Amino acid sequence: MSNVLAIDIGGTHFRMGLFDSEGHRLLLSEGRTESSGGREWMLSELRKRADALIARSDQHVQSCGISFGGPVDYGRQRVNSMHVSGWQSFRLAQWIEDNFSLRCQVDNDANAGALGEFRYGAGRSTESMLYLTISTGIGGGIVCGGRVHRGKDSMAGELGHIQVSDSGTLCSCGARGCLETVASGTAIELRARGFARRKPEVMARTIELAGGNPDQITAELVFRAAGEGEKGAQFIVREAARALAMALLTAIRILNPDAIILGGGVALSGPVLLDPVHEYLRERSASMLEHSTRVVQAELGNYSPLYGATALALELV
Amino acid sequence: MSNVLAIDIGGTHFRMGLFDSEGHRLLLSEGRTESSGGREWMLSELRKRADALIARSDQHVQSCGISFGGPVDYGRQRVNSMHVSGWQSFRLAQWIEDNFSLRCQVDNDANAGALGEFRYGAGRSTESMLYLTISTGIGGGIVCGGRVHRGKDSMAGELGHIQVSDSGTLCSCGARGCLETVASGTAIELRARGFARRKPEVMARTIELAGGNPDQITAELVFRAAGEGEKGAQFIVREAARALAMALLTAIRILNPDAIILGGGVALSGPVLLDPVHEYLRERSASMLEHSTRVVQAELGNYSPLYGATALALELV
Repeated sequence: MSNVLAIDIGGTHFRMGLFDSEGHRLLLSEGRTESSGGREWMLSELRKRADALIARSDQHVQSCGISFGGPVDYGRQRVNSMHVSGWQSFRLAQWIEDNFSLRCQVDNDANAGALGEFRYGAGRSTESMLYLTISTGIGGGIVCGGRVHRGKDSMAGELGHIQVSDSGTLCSCGARGCLETVASGTAIELRARGFARRKPEVMARTIELAGGNPDQITAELVFRAAGEGEKGAQFIVREAARALAMALLTAIRILNPDAIILGGGVALSGPVLLDPVHEYLRERSASMLEHSTRVVQAELGNYSPLYGATALALELV
Repeated sequence: MSNVLAIDIGGTHFRMGLFDSEGHRLLLSEGRTESSGGREWMLSELRKRADALIARSDQHVQSCGISFGGPVDYGRQRVNSMHVSGWQSFRLAQWIEDNFSLRCQVDNDANAGALGEFRYGAGRSTESMLYLTISTGIGGGIVCGGRVHRGKDSMAGELGHIQVSDSGTLCSCGARGCLETVASGTAIELRARGFARRKPEVMARTIELAGGNPDQITAELVFRAAGEGEKGAQFIVREAARALAMALLTAIRILNPDAIILGGGVALSGPVLLDPVHEYLRERSASMLEHSTRVVQAELGNYSPLYGATALALELV
């Protein structure tokens, strides 16, 4: 029996662990990402912590898997900037091999999250599934025929950039009306701040939670106020839920997967978002095209990508 | 070396053939479907022609594959009505086994078309592809990891029913703004007829082609008039192309397949439709999400599903 090293490099947090060949977590090490430190800070942190993890175990470590929170060219095993300096076209798997003499595979966090849920979470025993991670942005990963489907340009699963509105806000990708402009954490935050400035009377509780300053409103606070029954916050959450349901229905028409699994901070906020999503899904489902795709929350919570990294490592054993 | 029997049962035409194990067509028999004759007429026609095909060959026929132009429960091998009587929950593969002592597999025409193009047409050497058949309705089939992905409820690839407009016309499926309500042959025909009645001056050539009667306008005539430069017909074709491009872009975001292959009468009308589709695709593509998915016409034309039926039969050999 030997173990593997799994690493999840995210924009706000990073997580590392030793896992056994069954995917059980043996040791964990995690912290906040210091974006300003760029690649150098992250790599030195990884090196220190990986050395410590490996030293604490008396078993051989066989391989390494990494989930990276930014674009990954899977075929060439290169990662790219996630608004953080130094990552441009960086050969991260090669760096692990050079520094730890471990074979290594890297994938982006959406594909890793999909793989994690597929092997160890809500996607166990499915044949096909879609994993969506909804946090500051929206990403997605697809499992089809029991394998991650990455697509021609490593771009399958980009549900954040399907159009859910005829007109809509300009998106960071350059298009208009993308799902990400309505249902991401960033979008919810921006809408809530604007709404709070224009109509403070319907957002009083959200503003209070933000210490009286509309500019301090976060998506998390909007969900909390909505959960407490505030109309303004509920309105914003329902707009996000409606767009999300529309995108999910489109994914169901195209993939008709066994399950759609929702992860990431926004989705993990729970029933405040997911109840209206299910409501809109029921309302818009066509009787002629009944489907039995389950729409559920990620079982592994914030750890789906780390478990996916474990699965990536185990593929190399 | 032995041969297989392939059958394509469509709403307007049916086609049958003997194929060798390489998928080469040896003998062909085809005709128009008499919908009013229902299942009985079709089955008696099939029996007669299959007997004749088998008798004309001196080689053993090993198995049979069928493409069916209506919903197919692939797991249970049952077909369903395509607005034609007698097919409800009919065990078509079983009927072939009972009548010809041939093992048989049935799938719907969209999946069969996808399989045909994948094995013998424009999808050869792809790893993933989407086949769309655009005729009276719009159907689709997906190949992923080299295999047809049918989905949880045999409903994957239903691109005809993704929403391409916030409001939009009521669709036969019960939803609003589906692609099928703008880009199918039926939709193009209905729009052209209404337009011709309201503004005969901009549809003069289309009306002329229809013998002076707006109610005789077909999608085919709209494409012909548009090809000759008529503004009204071009407007309708461009509306269809725009909706189609939007749906294709959504499919590219979700699947990022190697290729999208367009078949069926409307798509096979050629550059009059496909040129503006490519134009809209270029215009709406996001620079941040560049993709290299090819969008091309079906190589096997109207025979994609028949070749798919051949592949279904060969899977049983």
